[in-house]
Amino acid sequence: MKQKIIGWIRKQIKRAKADGIILGLSGGLDSCVAARLAVLALGKKRVLGLILPCHSHGFDLDDAKLFARKFEIKTETVDLSRIYDSLIRVLPAADRLTKANIRPRLRMLVLYYFSRKLNYLVCGTSNKSELAVGYFTKYGDGASDIIPLGDLLKTQVRKLARDLKIPERIIAKPPTAGLWPGQTDEIEMGITYADLDDILERLEKRKKQIQPKIKVDRVKRMIRNSAHKRQGPKICFV
Amino acid sequence: MKQKIIGWIRKQIKRAKADGIILGLSGGLDSCVAARLAVLALGKKRVLGLILPCHSHGFDLDDAKLFARKFEIKTETVDLSRIYDSLIRVLPAADRLTKANIRPRLRMLVLYYFSRKLNYLVCGTSNKSELAVGYFTKYGDGASDIIPLGDLLKTQVRKLARDLKIPERIIAKPPTAGLWPGQTDEIEMGITYADLDDILERLEKRKKQIQPKIKVDRVKRMIRNSAHKRQGPKICFV
Repeated sequence: MKQKIIGWIRKQIKRAKADGIILGLSGGLDSCVAARLAVLALGKKRVLGLILPCHSHGFDLDDAKLFARKFEIKTETVDLSRIYDSLIRVLPAADRLTKANIRPRLRMLVLYYFSRKLNYLVCGTSNKSELAVGYFTKYGDGASDIIPLGDLLKTQVRKLARDLKIPERIIAKPPTAGLWPGQTDEIEMGITYADLDDILERLEKRKKQIQPKIKVDRVKRMIRNSAHKRQGPKICFV
Repeated sequence: MKQKIIGWIRKQIKRAKADGIILGLSGGLDSCVAARLAVLALGKKRVLGLILPCHSHGFDLDDAKLFARKFEIKTETVDLSRIYDSLIRVLPAADRLTKANIRPRLRMLVLYYFSRKLNYLVCGTSNKSELAVGYFTKYGDGASDIIPLGDLLKTQVRKLARDLKIPERIIAKPPTAGLWPGQTDEIEMGITYADLDDILERLEKRKKQIQPKIKVDRVKRMIRNSAHKRQGPKICFV
């Protein structure tokens, strides 16, 4: 599986006549695994990790830097906190999630700025579990050119991370979209990745579900309600 | 055709259980036509036009306001000039187009902020000619929920505008993406919309081309090279 993804990355770069890969490095599991695979595919000279803090607590930043040092991944840091504050000042008040969505979209904007400047492809770091239930920001972290981990469930990404010698503390910490302090994916989605992945796998393979029906129905609803996030804009055909 | 689009807009809003439509109002032809159709579909209470200047010259702003007044379209204005300046300060130097792409992406971010706040769908204002040759910013003006004009060539949008009684000065002025002062679509694409639309129509209907071969080949190349902008991110299937 590792070799297949590495080969696929090389093919995408060649096809797009791009010079390398750029990706956001949050210090989380998915971005570390994606960065590691990109380096294995293209060499460290052609991979750039952007560290894009935006009022984040030090924790993730430390992990991003630890990881980059360990695997000699080139990084640049652009602090978006003040840009975020300026935006909040010109926008009307809104709830926490509406404001939180600004961050991944700002990061996307910066990734594409570097992408064009360097002729690099933007590598998305979503996994299959997140994509399936729409646990990403439309046109934010959901916006990229290629998604190497897009067909791997979170539990598969975790296994791959061990194989890639990603530091255990990065593998073991609770996954978070970093939307606000203390936020974790599992609390926000209301389901653990273990249960979610089990349900998703059984849905795909049309196997009998073993999780409670109420949980399975909830996942099905999340899949249905997030369909628009996985498709492009709808066009009116006349 | 007008009635078909109006019905389609109503259907999209109903399906998404949305309360209305939000769109960027630049004062250009496409956004005025889209806004007018949205109002005809949903009534003026459920349509909001965002006027999002970003170091733009007064010209477009005046037209956006003129149009909104004439058709009683609700608007809000958020000036993004200072946000843009702050971004430029934290980003490394880059060429004109790389910097210009920041604007449509900032506008997208603001549109989605209001979209979530109001439970409105984001209406894209691209037309078929622009979409075909990729004359839009990926995840910028190319990012929306619905594109009512997405199957109309620019020349068809112009006809529809006359039918909708859009002010003649908006119909007649040279189309521009507003990327920099004096920029026009036709100069930047290197082809007039009349010629482009003629070529696109003949390609679609597999009719013999009457434009010079070099021009037709160029359009074909633009279509091919922009395919990635019309698709979502590529996923590696393992």
